[in-house]
Amino acid sequence: MTPFAMTPQTLPSWPDAAPTLIAIAAGRAPADTVIRGGKVVLVHTREVLEWQIAIAQGRFAYVGPDAGHCIGPDTEIIEAEGRYVIPGLCDAHMHVESGMLIPAEFCAAVIPHGTTAMFTDPHEIANVLGLPGVRLMHDEARIQPCSMFVQMPSCAPSAPGLETTGHEITPDDVAEAMTWPGIVGLGEMMNFPGVANGDPKMLAEMAATARAGKTIGGHYASPDLGPAFHAYAAGGPADDHEGTCEADAVARVRQGMRSMMRLGSAWYDVKTQITAVTERGLDPRNFILCTDDCMAGTLVNDGHMNRVLRHAIACGCDPLVALQMCTINTATHFGLERELGSIAPGRRADVILTSDLTTLPIERVIAMGRTVAENGKLIVDCPHLDWPDAARNTVHMGKTLTDTNFEIPAPIGANEVTAKVIGVVENQAPTKALTRRLPVRDGRVEAEGDTCQIALVERHRGTGGVVNALVAGFGYTGKMAMASTVAHDSHHMIVVGTDRAAMAQAANRLAEVGGGVTFWADGTERALVELPIAGLMSDSPAADVAAKAEALIQAMRDAGCILNNAYMQHSLLALVVIPELRISDLGLVDVTKFELTDLIETP
Amino acid sequence: MTPFAMTPQTLPSWPDAAPTLIAIAAGRAPADTVIRGGKVVLVHTREVLEWQIAIAQGRFAYVGPDAGHCIGPDTEIIEAEGRYVIPGLCDAHMHVESGMLIPAEFCAAVIPHGTTAMFTDPHEIANVLGLPGVRLMHDEARIQPCSMFVQMPSCAPSAPGLETTGHEITPDDVAEAMTWPGIVGLGEMMNFPGVANGDPKMLAEMAATARAGKTIGGHYASPDLGPAFHAYAAGGPADDHEGTCEADAVARVRQGMRSMMRLGSAWYDVKTQITAVTERGLDPRNFILCTDDCMAGTLVNDGHMNRVLRHAIACGCDPLVALQMCTINTATHFGLERELGSIAPGRRADVILTSDLTTLPIERVIAMGRTVAENGKLIVDCPHLDWPDAARNTVHMGKTLTDTNFEIPAPIGANEVTAKVIGVVENQAPTKALTRRLPVRDGRVEAEGDTCQIALVERHRGTGGVVNALVAGFGYTGKMAMASTVAHDSHHMIVVGTDRAAMAQAANRLAEVGGGVTFWADGTERALVELPIAGLMSDSPAADVAAKAEALIQAMRDAGCILNNAYMQHSLLALVVIPELRISDLGLVDVTKFELTDLIETP
Repeated sequence: MTPFAMTPQTLPSWPDAAPTLIAIAAGRAPADTVIRGGKVVLVHTREVLEWQIAIAQGRFAYVGPDAGHCIGPDTEIIEAEGRYVIPGLCDAHMHVESGMLIPAEFCAAVIPHGTTAMFTDPHEIANVLGLPGVRLMHDEARIQPCSMFVQMPSCAPSAPGLETTGHEITPDDVAEAMTWPGIVGLGEMMNFPGVANGDPKMLAEMAATARAGKTIGGHYASPDLGPAFHAYAAGGPADDHEGTCEADAVARVRQGMRSMMRLGSAWYDVKTQITAVTERGLDPRNFILCTDDCMAGTLVNDGHMNRVLRHAIACGCDPLVALQMCTINTATHFGLERELGSIAPGRRADVILTSDLTTLPIERVIAMGRTVAENGKLIVDCPHLDWPDAARNTVHMGKTLTDTNFEIPAPIGANEVTAKVIGVVENQAPTKALTRRLPVRDGRVEAEGDTCQIALVERHRGTGGVVNALVAGFGYTGKMAMASTVAHDSHHMIVVGTDRAAMAQAANRLAEVGGGVTFWADGTERALVELPIAGLMSDSPAADVAAKAEALIQAMRDAGCILNNAYMQHSLLALVVIPELRISDLGLVDVTKFELTDLIETP
Repeated sequence: MTPFAMTPQTLPSWPDAAPTLIAIAAGRAPADTVIRGGKVVLVHTREVLEWQIAIAQGRFAYVGPDAGHCIGPDTEIIEAEGRYVIPGLCDAHMHVESGMLIPAEFCAAVIPHGTTAMFTDPHEIANVLGLPGVRLMHDEARIQPCSMFVQMPSCAPSAPGLETTGHEITPDDVAEAMTWPGIVGLGEMMNFPGVANGDPKMLAEMAATARAGKTIGGHYASPDLGPAFHAYAAGGPADDHEGTCEADAVARVRQGMRSMMRLGSAWYDVKTQITAVTERGLDPRNFILCTDDCMAGTLVNDGHMNRVLRHAIACGCDPLVALQMCTINTATHFGLERELGSIAPGRRADVILTSDLTTLPIERVIAMGRTVAENGKLIVDCPHLDWPDAARNTVHMGKTLTDTNFEIPAPIGANEVTAKVIGVVENQAPTKALTRRLPVRDGRVEAEGDTCQIALVERHRGTGGVVNALVAGFGYTGKMAMASTVAHDSHHMIVVGTDRAAMAQAANRLAEVGGGVTFWADGTERALVELPIAGLMSDSPAADVAAKAEALIQAMRDAGCILNNAYMQHSLLALVVIPELRISDLGLVDVTKFELTDLIETP
């Protein structure tokens, strides 16, 4: 490990570095590093030029045809040997917590894939720990050897009145966070009905952000592109990553919002939207690539933004246009065009060497002027914060649960009921509001066929509360249960199971280990991912967490689960801002109407 | 005149207007104004759609297929009748003073041409009156019925050591100005050798701007695209309007700067540079149109940004791409993409109705939601500031001049001399450093042939100083003189003449009227443009000033002047930041070397 990585906290600003950068460009002083012999990709013009680059103080000093005058006796020379030299990749919208990793380990996982800048919304920890939790994420982000910017979470709770979070975020919290050095804007404004209805709290948060000159993130998760959508746009969100089809992307860009197209572990929204550029021919500048949510396994095995970029190119997008969508377009969106996202003087020297612009092998990664990864291996430290106890002890169930806590009482005298069932949809965030005719035994509704039970166990205040409901689409067989303290967005505990005793075992196990995800079948634990930080993240190395997560997925498959990434689907079943049917600590939620609804439709 | 125009000072911010905008878009409240029946041009996507627009509080509330739900009993309906509805035009870089008009009268002149946003650098008044002069311009700009943003002048003096200004601008001045509400950035950093040499004062000004999150304007007026250019780019200027050929435009954009292509009264730099987009196919987003300097006559008779836009289209640029170059590209450059430059929710409702996208008749202009011009006629007031005496009494010559003050002594015993001569170049800012063999009579060098005399008369401190030199290229015949207190950049007084007595008459006349431009021939005054504000601007209506300016041009032509716009050329003869040869109060200046030089080369 080299000891001298540059971080957002130690990087000189452009004005501070300017005297040095100028002297180097003018030939009066030597650069720290020169890259030569490569094909430099200029995202400002969409050109590839046989140019050379000089770097100092973590920034580009010279980008031009010949950096010979920038070389001194101690200048490190990097021979690109004919490879492409492209800007480091930016993830415009993501949640570190979705990787089940603390920011440091997330960076350690994605830097070798060429991601040098991230815009992360620590919405999950905000729900568990409030503003102090956001500050912890911010502070760890600031000491990483890459650029991790933090968006201040906007919606804790994301749907007031429909769930109870561990902590709430207020407009004053937002205003305070806007003064922190690593805060780049407001995280996705998920309360889109609130905005469209003029909710003063949501408007106050957006106003605090706008007045600080920062970017308001959007999240409009509805297919309704009528007046409610227009009202949301009039409220001020500047982007949206919730589009799922070309019409969604086009509608957003026409409103002057940027369309963020995501390819996460479970989101596949690039292919369906990028046709707005590749086929309709719209100006590509307002289209941006992001991941939103990636599991550790995806990060370790499949990649990060390099995976998204490759995918966009495979979808028919011109490689240089696609590269703009995860470099300069992103930087421009966040008002950071002069700070990163291109190979140009003064910007953070974030660079990838790759021998092919389509298959994108990430052969060397330079962040803020330092080589941070080579041939897929991280070669710098990603330092951990000293996480306090308050962040490590967050699972408070109040009592040990038993199978009776998971019983669903039927209306008196009923032999069968028609019940509402949350329908999981493969590779998509929205669920379907299904109904199933289910039998009643001993006064209890029994799940069967494609349907099993789901419970939301309160874990922030130790109330002992358990809300029971039904879910379909996982495909589980046999006696199993899976519990997780990752339960977007309020992050209580979701327990899904075909067996109530197993559900109790799983829930109690998470209380014992301080949070995480556990899978039980036939009375024994088949997989466990410990997530001791807020019940959301591990401070173990990414590869270890990925291996445990992979074992979890395998355990789910062994129990009959048929979904592509069922863990992600599992963890979103309480996400009461995305249609159609969800569960919360307050009950079953109809997200098309934003109201609580009864589980049993008719006896 | 309607009394209710909106101004930058009275316009509610988007956050303040958001509750109203949201309610209108959602259909819960009526809009002030709805525009329907038009073809709306969306510069975010480069589309033309048969859409409708709702406006309130000076901003767009709804932009979409049907604004019917935004209409109430008091909503004003504007029927576009099939015309195009395009965003108001932005001038990305200009100097109000070049129009010889105070900001109010400049706005009055250009609003009917469809200009709704301007980014003006009051560099001229800064040289005469310093920071208080900038504040006066800023304050008048803030009360206009259109968006006039002010860039804080960076270079007074523009070439320290080569001229003496009325006042100087310091880094502290810049830092203070960055706190004013109407300041959008730093005006063109003309001291490009200073930047390339690491001049601490220039770097401090740019740092104060960058730290305020505002845009650093550039001005690199040299054909040298080697290390000096790269050093300048490394210093931080974000744009440049001094390019004159395709290579200039390409070089700037490749450095991550924006290429501002100008068509002023005397600048014709669009046609030669726009081929970077139209032929080389570079991404157009970093190309911007501007005027830089327009005389009143051009504004009244030919147009403003509509003239530039038409010209760009005539040069082969796609009309929608060209429109982006004077709307959204400009707004994005100044970090105002969410504030103006497109027809999208929340933005300032700046709109033009035009029946043709190529010939661009400006049929109706709406600025901040109010109709401000119809069919070429202004229909709102452009209020004047109460300009103080200090701004009206700025011509201090110290003494009455006579013909002897304009004598050029020859070396003792010389019958002829080889003298350096400033060579005016048609339609371009740079001059040529010429030499002429000239006769000596009675110990004085006598101009003849294509050469006449030029003098720089000190007028800020009443020193009585007169610097004499020679100029070629005007074509004057007979006994004439022209004097002007518009003398970029330090704005002493330039006097050009074929006759020393006439030169004295002209200079004395300007002292008498408090500044302006006067033309004398055969002993009488043939034209006078009074410019009582700082000796730079008139507070008369634009048409009156234009008529006087036109009479001035005619007087110049009558005296044999052959140049397209000789007044502009005249006023730039002391501009010691643009090559090759200039005059200042300190002497003759070789701008290729940035040093004073001798008038007489050899006896």
